[in-house]
Amino acid sequence: MSTTVQKGKFITIEGIEGVGKSSNVNLIADLIQKAGNQVVVTREPGGTPIAEAIRKVLLAEYDEEIFGQTELLLLYAARIQHVEHVIKPALAEGKWVVCDRFVDATYAYQGAGRGIPIEKIDSLHQWALGDFVPDCTIILDASPEIAFERIKKNRDLDRFEKEKIFFFQRIRQQYLQIAGRDKQRYRIVDASRPLKDVQDIIRGIIVNIF
Amino acid sequence: MSTTVQKGKFITIEGIEGVGKSSNVNLIADLIQKAGNQVVVTREPGGTPIAEAIRKVLLAEYDEEIFGQTELLLLYAARIQHVEHVIKPALAEGKWVVCDRFVDATYAYQGAGRGIPIEKIDSLHQWALGDFVPDCTIILDASPEIAFERIKKNRDLDRFEKEKIFFFQRIRQQYLQIAGRDKQRYRIVDASRPLKDVQDIIRGIIVNIF
Repeated sequence: MSTTVQKGKFITIEGIEGVGKSSNVNLIADLIQKAGNQVVVTREPGGTPIAEAIRKVLLAEYDEEIFGQTELLLLYAARIQHVEHVIKPALAEGKWVVCDRFVDATYAYQGAGRGIPIEKIDSLHQWALGDFVPDCTIILDASPEIAFERIKKNRDLDRFEKEKIFFFQRIRQQYLQIAGRDKQRYRIVDASRPLKDVQDIIRGIIVNIF
Repeated sequence: MSTTVQKGKFITIEGIEGVGKSSNVNLIADLIQKAGNQVVVTREPGGTPIAEAIRKVLLAEYDEEIFGQTELLLLYAARIQHVEHVIKPALAEGKWVVCDRFVDATYAYQGAGRGIPIEKIDSLHQWALGDFVPDCTIILDASPEIAFERIKKNRDLDRFEKEKIFFFQRIRQQYLQIAGRDKQRYRIVDASRPLKDVQDIIRGIIVNIF
């Protein structure tokens, strides 16, 4: 196991609700620390006080339809604060950053979910963050039926989660489609397998990044 | 005085703090109504529950620097809700809309104030609203020194207003510069003159739009 300080890497975990992002974020953080690296664990939308305030606006219920493009602008507003205040400074100090959802969640949820074309999201991404993307994105992939069973056991559903299974099927397909745009960056993991198997696969991915 | 129902027009009032936007908004609304038209008076940022929630995020104080691009995305997020839910539906019904600040405030405050290039704001405007702009924009123009004297007499200053006179000088110059891009749409009114004179000039502008 290396204790040499290496340049920080930026890893993101993606997938529909219920695929086990949180527990695998913790696993990845542990692996990085055990390899002798400092790690910052964060999440989107959120990650700074202003980003959290924007997250509240996004998750609140209103007697007013919120447009997909409005959601997109709010997500990128929060993201600029998060990237500039948390992610980039940590990477510059040689720390690794593990983020529970990032830009790909926007492509999946606002793209497939709200019907915003990928090119329209691309142009906003370029406007807000230029070429900044994660070094590695792990997509935990499972059918919405399996994922929903896990969600219902644990907790209440929020506004996004209340949307229908059909919605999540489109989200899942969109994740798989965008993963096809960069086979170097994206790693698709079958999250319907037992947790131990999923963890073994993720261990293999992370070890290869060191 | 015509009582014929005419197609709704969209009028915006702009200018730095203290130039008298609010009282002139009321004057314009009165003129429009007396000419037999229905009028909707609104303001930015705000105008819908979601836009007001975003406005609160923009005006709150944080132990965190807010980037100019973040402000810009929040302003346009609120603006989409405002335009699609309030302004466009009113215009479609033949009502006139008078708005206290709109896109030009963004060009002035985030452009000159935060140093964001006009072309960068143009590209976000196009992304969010396409070619939608007001039919007429009245810029109340006065030196920051005169405007500040008026503000201090009336009320406490908020975060934006606390910025220095120098800042408002740049804002004023930016308003004048963007007005030069479309001499048909923009009307610059000398707001340092007595209120009665300013009102006479505005009356002349509005009568010409009917």
